[in-house]
Amino acid sequence: MVNKINIEEKLGLINDYWNPRIIGELNGQHIKLAKLKGEFIWHKHIEEDEMFLVISGKLIIAFRDKNIELLPNEFCIIPKGIEHRPIANEEVSIMLFEPISTLNTGDIQNEFTKASLTNI
Amino acid sequence: MVNKINIEEKLGLINDYWNPRIIGELNGQHIKLAKLKGEFIWHKHIEEDEMFLVISGKLIIAFRDKNIELLPNEFCIIPKGIEHRPIANEEVSIMLFEPISTLNTGDIQNEFTKASLTNI
Repeated sequence: MVNKINIEEKLGLINDYWNPRIIGELNGQHIKLAKLKGEFIWHKHIEEDEMFLVISGKLIIAFRDKNIELLPNEFCIIPKGIEHRPIANEEVSIMLFEPISTLNTGDIQNEFTKASLTNI
Repeated sequence: MVNKINIEEKLGLINDYWNPRIIGELNGQHIKLAKLKGEFIWHKHIEEDEMFLVISGKLIIAFRDKNIELLPNEFCIIPKGIEHRPIANEEVSIMLFEPISTLNTGDIQNEFTKASLTNI
């Protein structure tokens, strides 16, 4: 059964930060949505590349040597092993495209870690 | 090296239809953009699920038992093996997430087939 998914509708179901929700699955990958506000932790993913696509707001991704600013309809791909830190001074909505195995905090486990994600 | 990619800028580089371009790669998957106009062929993908995310315009995806209409910020995931036919009555811009192996015409090879895709 194929259904259409409306990103804005799904975002309307999210009312917390740094807690990605799963909105689709294909080829061993998850499509996720999240709302972000504030500064996340420095982390890296040992096995997975990561993609951040901004839907609304401005997302800063800090790297050890530079920052990247992403506006709506902009994305970046962070290769595995690269340390990064997402920063959202105001609320940001993003879409993520990641292998099913990906943990949000990468190689770090702390209070930000979401070990099991919800489908919405 | 991590760079930001602007979807609108990349779309500005595309001036033909049914010819996906690669704009990113991660975890064995390609991020592609394409402009569509007219009716594509009926086809299915034997090995790969496929995701169509509409950036602008209205995309109809015909299935054997129904049609789905996708507007901007809407997407659908078509599981492998499901026959489908994209239809764009006016110009549509889409983003695709697909395994690197995916051929645009799936199990059919004809004049629509793009055996090797360009990076933009």
